[in-house]
Amino acid sequence: MRILVLGGDGYLGWPTALHFSQGGHDVGVVDNLVRRHYDEEMGSNSLVPIRQLHRRVATWKEVSGHTITPFIGDLDDYPFLYETIRSFEPDSVVHFAEQRSAPYSMIDRAHAVYTQVNNVVGTLNLLYAIAELNPAIHIVKLGTMGEYGTPNIDIEEGYIEITHKGRTDVLPYPKQPGSFYHLSKVHDSHNIQFACRIWGLRSTDLNQGVVYGQQTPETNLHPDLETRFDYDGVFGTVLNRFAVQAAVGYPLTVYGKGGQTRGMIDIRDTLACVELACLNPAAKGEFRVFNQFTETFSVIQMAEWVKRVSPVPVTIESIPDPRVEKEEHYYNAIATHLPDLGLQPHLLADEHVASLVELAIKHKNRVNPEAIRPTVNWRTTKSEVSVSGGAVGE
Amino acid sequence: MRILVLGGDGYLGWPTALHFSQGGHDVGVVDNLVRRHYDEEMGSNSLVPIRQLHRRVATWKEVSGHTITPFIGDLDDYPFLYETIRSFEPDSVVHFAEQRSAPYSMIDRAHAVYTQVNNVVGTLNLLYAIAELNPAIHIVKLGTMGEYGTPNIDIEEGYIEITHKGRTDVLPYPKQPGSFYHLSKVHDSHNIQFACRIWGLRSTDLNQGVVYGQQTPETNLHPDLETRFDYDGVFGTVLNRFAVQAAVGYPLTVYGKGGQTRGMIDIRDTLACVELACLNPAAKGEFRVFNQFTETFSVIQMAEWVKRVSPVPVTIESIPDPRVEKEEHYYNAIATHLPDLGLQPHLLADEHVASLVELAIKHKNRVNPEAIRPTVNWRTTKSEVSVSGGAVGE
Repeated sequence: MRILVLGGDGYLGWPTALHFSQGGHDVGVVDNLVRRHYDEEMGSNSLVPIRQLHRRVATWKEVSGHTITPFIGDLDDYPFLYETIRSFEPDSVVHFAEQRSAPYSMIDRAHAVYTQVNNVVGTLNLLYAIAELNPAIHIVKLGTMGEYGTPNIDIEEGYIEITHKGRTDVLPYPKQPGSFYHLSKVHDSHNIQFACRIWGLRSTDLNQGVVYGQQTPETNLHPDLETRFDYDGVFGTVLNRFAVQAAVGYPLTVYGKGGQTRGMIDIRDTLACVELACLNPAAKGEFRVFNQFTETFSVIQMAEWVKRVSPVPVTIESIPDPRVEKEEHYYNAIATHLPDLGLQPHLLADEHVASLVELAIKHKNRVNPEAIRPTVNWRTTKSEVSVSGGAVGE
Repeated sequence: MRILVLGGDGYLGWPTALHFSQGGHDVGVVDNLVRRHYDEEMGSNSLVPIRQLHRRVATWKEVSGHTITPFIGDLDDYPFLYETIRSFEPDSVVHFAEQRSAPYSMIDRAHAVYTQVNNVVGTLNLLYAIAELNPAIHIVKLGTMGEYGTPNIDIEEGYIEITHKGRTDVLPYPKQPGSFYHLSKVHDSHNIQFACRIWGLRSTDLNQGVVYGQQTPETNLHPDLETRFDYDGVFGTVLNRFAVQAAVGYPLTVYGKGGQTRGMIDIRDTLACVELACLNPAAKGEFRVFNQFTETFSVIQMAEWVKRVSPVPVTIESIPDPRVEKEEHYYNAIATHLPDLGLQPHLLADEHVASLVELAIKHKNRVNPEAIRPTVNWRTTKSEVSVSGGAVGE
């Protein structure tokens, strides 16, 4: 197949591109490289050193003999996107190319607006380009389990059958996203579903849990091929961040009671899920939703797991939750579509948790401790007009 | 109260501003005047001649003795919006200031992107400005019944209680919007609900049906005070458009079978509903949804009604539906919150239908017949890259 990976320079986009290339597919990657710019903006960095995209692609050619074609540009630049899809002629487009940090979207008004415009317009442009060039191209879109929030009923995969006053329909699952970033993904889902309906496009929305891990069979082939690993308070996600906190002797920062329960997934399973989606495409006109995680854990469970297996001493510290979310709640999310297609999950085990801490210890000299603590609070706002941030009451 | 009407130069915004001013409230209107620009772009016009905003406000002062303060500017210009709200100090902001035509949003990629960015960013800016300046300001936001689509179960007011696998929760009502415009309103609703939750804002989302009529007690006081009346294929809505088609001897254009059923509301009831919402504000942190219509009719019912009461001969023509929608469907939408607050509806009667046709006959010399027929098809796309529009299969 011909696979175009949007956001192919990022944490998951790059290993996904390698995985498809290793599997014998023709792979292109599209990226505006803005993820590297966010590091400069935030004063953060990847725990693991990463190479420039051109170097990555060149090393991959040397190591594997396979060619990955890079396209440097922005999805919000429609002529660029249109020409890229026209010339590459993909069978599937895998769309990772969005601003993906909830805290980043909550920094202030400008970051909220940037996140929603960047994500929504990039996806709108993609829908138009595919509708005009070739509606048969399968759009595999990365969504998030965070679109659902934490309802008091089971979370289904995108749709729910509702019986109400004696009548029944299958409707889109109600969404209660928890940040302007998560909201942008909900907006995307609605837009894509509509495009499938009116233009007969085909799409799979992968509502992904929190990804942990950094190594895949392909990234392990050469140091130039490693993917980024974020540990900071803005882009670092829970288990990865705990591993780094453990490595540098920083308390594991649990938000509030730590009863927040989330779907989790190993980075290798992310690649397998995306591959399964591409190899088993949605039908013409179908908007299909897969929940993409393999296990659920509460935040405090993960902190205690890291503490138990870490080779260095660990403390756990509860800090006030910077987010507005339930610190304890019912959580039962369904994820059967991907296992039905053949997913064999890598479940979290002591050795995986320990290996994350060991990875962090190996690179601990690169860690900026000042970047670890959360700096973005959901309850405050900042704009370029008021001189300083204002706190608004809950 | 102090009422700031965003979009106060438009079809409904202007009569709303007059209504509040007549009621003794302090009224400001904010508008970037882009609705007048759309006329230039589309080659269409208002059936009824309308005055410039400055003239409207001056005449209103002469006629009523009341002052309406105009603020000319764009919600997407945050410093302008912030300063307007800071200086005016409203108790309620009534938000009509969005691109509100479904066909306009479906013209091509650029219009889809414009509609979603304009509407979503304007509303995001409003949320931030109010969170920073005074979270007690009540946001009365115009949504649309079109957010819900046409589910096979009853449409509730914003929320639905779902019992699923033995557990129950009240969740946002699932949305199935039918255009990029309707989608922008769904995006807004999610963003506003989130802002109420995290910042304790208070908002009422008015999911309005299709509005008909053009005269209100205040606009009738002087010809300078009249509000616009759209009849063209892009901005004209169903009953108003039929009245003009009847007046000029053009067949009433029914899309497909005409079984599309919609909630409808008299323009005077729109004003009453907005007033009821402002006088009975949402609680701190509450995101409240009212369905704002008084009756439901199918398109063919309305066409036949116009035919029956028109003083001039009328024919009805079924044309292929340019939209992707069900031409026949179940439709039962609940709207009890506004009647519970005291709404006394003006139900559609023969004399109202006839008066619409008479209004159109009075101004028939202003009608551009070429603007009447629908020119935007949901199934085709156009972009600035491809030379001509492409048709994609259903």
